[in-house]
Amino acid sequence: MAKLPTRAENYSEWYNQLVEAAGLAEHSAVRGCMIIKPYGYAIWEKMQAILDKMFKDTGHQNAYFPLFIPKSFFNKEAKHVEGFAKECAVVTHYRLKNDRAGNLIVDEEAKLEEELIIRPTSETIIWHAYKKWIGSYRDLPLLINQWANVVRWEMRPRLFLRTAEFLWQEGHTAHATAAEAQAEARQMLDVYVNFVENWLAMPVIKGTKTANERFAGAVETYTLETMTQDGKALQAGTSHFLGQNFAKAFDVQFTDASGKLDYVWATSWGVSTRLMGALVMAHADDNGLVLPPKLAPIQAIIVPIYQTIDQLKELDRTALNIKQALAAKNISVQYDNSDNKRPGWKFAESELKGVPIRLGLGPKDLAQGTIEVARRDTLTKESWPINDIANKVEALLREIQTNLFTRATKFTTDRTRIVDTYEELKEVMEQGGFALAHWDGTTETELKIKEETKATIRCIPADGKPENGKCIYSGRPSGQRVIFARAY
Amino acid sequence: MAKLPTRAENYSEWYNQLVEAAGLAEHSAVRGCMIIKPYGYAIWEKMQAILDKMFKDTGHQNAYFPLFIPKSFFNKEAKHVEGFAKECAVVTHYRLKNDRAGNLIVDEEAKLEEELIIRPTSETIIWHAYKKWIGSYRDLPLLINQWANVVRWEMRPRLFLRTAEFLWQEGHTAHATAAEAQAEARQMLDVYVNFVENWLAMPVIKGTKTANERFAGAVETYTLETMTQDGKALQAGTSHFLGQNFAKAFDVQFTDASGKLDYVWATSWGVSTRLMGALVMAHADDNGLVLPPKLAPIQAIIVPIYQTIDQLKELDRTALNIKQALAAKNISVQYDNSDNKRPGWKFAESELKGVPIRLGLGPKDLAQGTIEVARRDTLTKESWPINDIANKVEALLREIQTNLFTRATKFTTDRTRIVDTYEELKEVMEQGGFALAHWDGTTETELKIKEETKATIRCIPADGKPENGKCIYSGRPSGQRVIFARAY
Repeated sequence: MAKLPTRAENYSEWYNQLVEAAGLAEHSAVRGCMIIKPYGYAIWEKMQAILDKMFKDTGHQNAYFPLFIPKSFFNKEAKHVEGFAKECAVVTHYRLKNDRAGNLIVDEEAKLEEELIIRPTSETIIWHAYKKWIGSYRDLPLLINQWANVVRWEMRPRLFLRTAEFLWQEGHTAHATAAEAQAEARQMLDVYVNFVENWLAMPVIKGTKTANERFAGAVETYTLETMTQDGKALQAGTSHFLGQNFAKAFDVQFTDASGKLDYVWATSWGVSTRLMGALVMAHADDNGLVLPPKLAPIQAIIVPIYQTIDQLKELDRTALNIKQALAAKNISVQYDNSDNKRPGWKFAESELKGVPIRLGLGPKDLAQGTIEVARRDTLTKESWPINDIANKVEALLREIQTNLFTRATKFTTDRTRIVDTYEELKEVMEQGGFALAHWDGTTETELKIKEETKATIRCIPADGKPENGKCIYSGRPSGQRVIFARAY
Repeated sequence: MAKLPTRAENYSEWYNQLVEAAGLAEHSAVRGCMIIKPYGYAIWEKMQAILDKMFKDTGHQNAYFPLFIPKSFFNKEAKHVEGFAKECAVVTHYRLKNDRAGNLIVDEEAKLEEELIIRPTSETIIWHAYKKWIGSYRDLPLLINQWANVVRWEMRPRLFLRTAEFLWQEGHTAHATAAEAQAEARQMLDVYVNFVENWLAMPVIKGTKTANERFAGAVETYTLETMTQDGKALQAGTSHFLGQNFAKAFDVQFTDASGKLDYVWATSWGVSTRLMGALVMAHADDNGLVLPPKLAPIQAIIVPIYQTIDQLKELDRTALNIKQALAAKNISVQYDNSDNKRPGWKFAESELKGVPIRLGLGPKDLAQGTIEVARRDTLTKESWPINDIANKVEALLREIQTNLFTRATKFTTDRTRIVDTYEELKEVMEQGGFALAHWDGTTETELKIKEETKATIRCIPADGKPENGKCIYSGRPSGQRVIFARAY
């Protein structure tokens, strides 16, 4: 196996190489587009299954809307067009033909009257449909989610974090009142927080975006921010209260119980394959991935340690018994008795792939009735009796899940500093980490700080306490600290 | 509810209106692209879950490849380009901008050097990746599936059956030998047959396509053909043995155990949201959808029959007990006690939606300890004792599943005729149905028959017996009958 750079040597390259080496994803022949490989896709499928259940448990249904959006739709919501319709893939023709030399060329006679945009997000095409679906309060709330691919042209692509095409889910709901829509946007933010904390084992800071960082077309954007091991912020998901903006843009009105006509209130919310990148950035180490047990495609691997084929055959029976005992507890377990790789290679591979628990079984273990249990999170090993191994592995998987969250929480807490001067802010940004600082609430100050330090306001924390202070930049009064960080 | 045309009045319009009225799908603002509505998507999700499990049980893994394919890729496999690269959506630009008047226009400075085609199918982009993934026999077989959207421009779109964008799965496998690849292609055909017969409750005729009807780039195309209620053929899925065509086009070679270098052997196979259309066309009737219990989002609905709110309250308790008893058996059950619709309307709605079993509960039933059980497949009703209702409903769901398959099988058998003259063939085509006829094996004859009768050869049936005969068109010798039909 090729050796990865360490995080300390080159964090950025460590990430890029690890994603490919571990078989999560790779760059494709099309600039900016990635191939999600089977091992990476297996993790994404687990994420999808868990989220999908959470969405359904909160009353949402899935549907599917077109990949293409007529160009004119983007003009309908003034702020949305500013934020979205620019770096997009544009379909202009619907046919190819052979030229005289037999080469495939675009058929100029098959030019579309109106260009089609590959969806960068689907508010416009969905709200165009909602106009037909919504007439009265009886049609509300309308709680829809879509699993889809979207495209946003990227000049500096990076696997999972910034790719031209990515996979995501986008919820789009319609409500009779502003309060109900606001509650929905906050509810879905909490669904994401629950998912990221309890499955990805990553602590989040939830809060509200500033006007400048708000989704194009939203009245309020809620966000969850996570910290990478180089102390940057990574936005893990967002949930938007859209007010009546899209309802007005697409003329979606409803009659309430008293017969009064009003525009519908909306939310949208999404997470994407970006979460895969967040997962790597939060937990992986210099040896490879470190996967939370709840998302690991393989939770435990059994590796036989032997010299001769006869020894292997002896180990097989016990190993297969252990495998069966683990599988009976719904633990996803693999027994790697392939004879073309040495145990040392298998150890390294299971570490690279982030398998939470590795069980090493050799002739000595067999004689003693023990097995060597290696934890991926701590890289520690212990010898355990084979009897009752299934219960102990089950408990250890839970412990690893908890430990990853605890460790990441400590990391985030340690690197989140309260700063009271602009100099301190700059210092934290250079070292890496989050800074809790007073800000005067103006976009002007926000942009100046960004220009000078590359730090953006990640959010106004939801659990932040009111506190009178002075803006670190302008000295003007501030009522609450906000989170500054450099971001992916 | 709007009244549908009957199948006898206008089969085509019956289908179009039913798909929309039942809430399966609708046309979108983009020509040829459909919106799959929640009820339709719920059925598709069930299909996906069952197929996905079948794919995994046969050793396949999911992955995801880019939406975009560089135009030049289509030139690499000579036959593939003929068949595929023509009616495609072409991306030529990657940015929009505002003109002086503030209108959104394509930014001519953001023109792609090479146009990108929205995938109509992914053989080319996948085999380009496989070149990197495959080096030796140890990397084989490579068994990958992808769930994705694809686009094939359609001039005469029709919901589910022919849409510009549709959802599907595409399997792409690589093997060390021709025999193994052929076995894989046949295995996946059988997976589809099992799925369509045992879940969609539709009989299929499986077989091989003629050279003329073969997938562009395949050596052999296996197909499963189903019959619609107007006696046409509907291709439900295909599985292709691709030989070494794509391996040669993308230079994918492997060293075998003896160190010899050879091109890899390939298959691809897919089914799509077209199956949704097949399901409607096979079972639905003049009252609406008829869903096989195994795919019905709601398997049973309980409708209270009452005059006063007090009566409704009395019914509630018993109805909720029944609901609970059914749910405990994993039956998907709904109790519709909404007070804004009359029972008659609810009955009609549940028929339109194809709910397999409707349970009507009124004050008289309550007094007698009975409940009215209505079957959607036969439109018959019976009064049953309430005690033990869960077991009986469970058994009835199985019976309905079986009955739908039996009924559709009888329908297909009755309309499949052995014909020995060209006149008879024309007659069957006019009446609707499949014709088993001798054919001389030439594309010339095949095309002549198609031109004159609109009938195509759907397949050379896999279970057809060798039988010497004369081609109904040319009189030349033939060794086996083939299936002719007009097709969707």
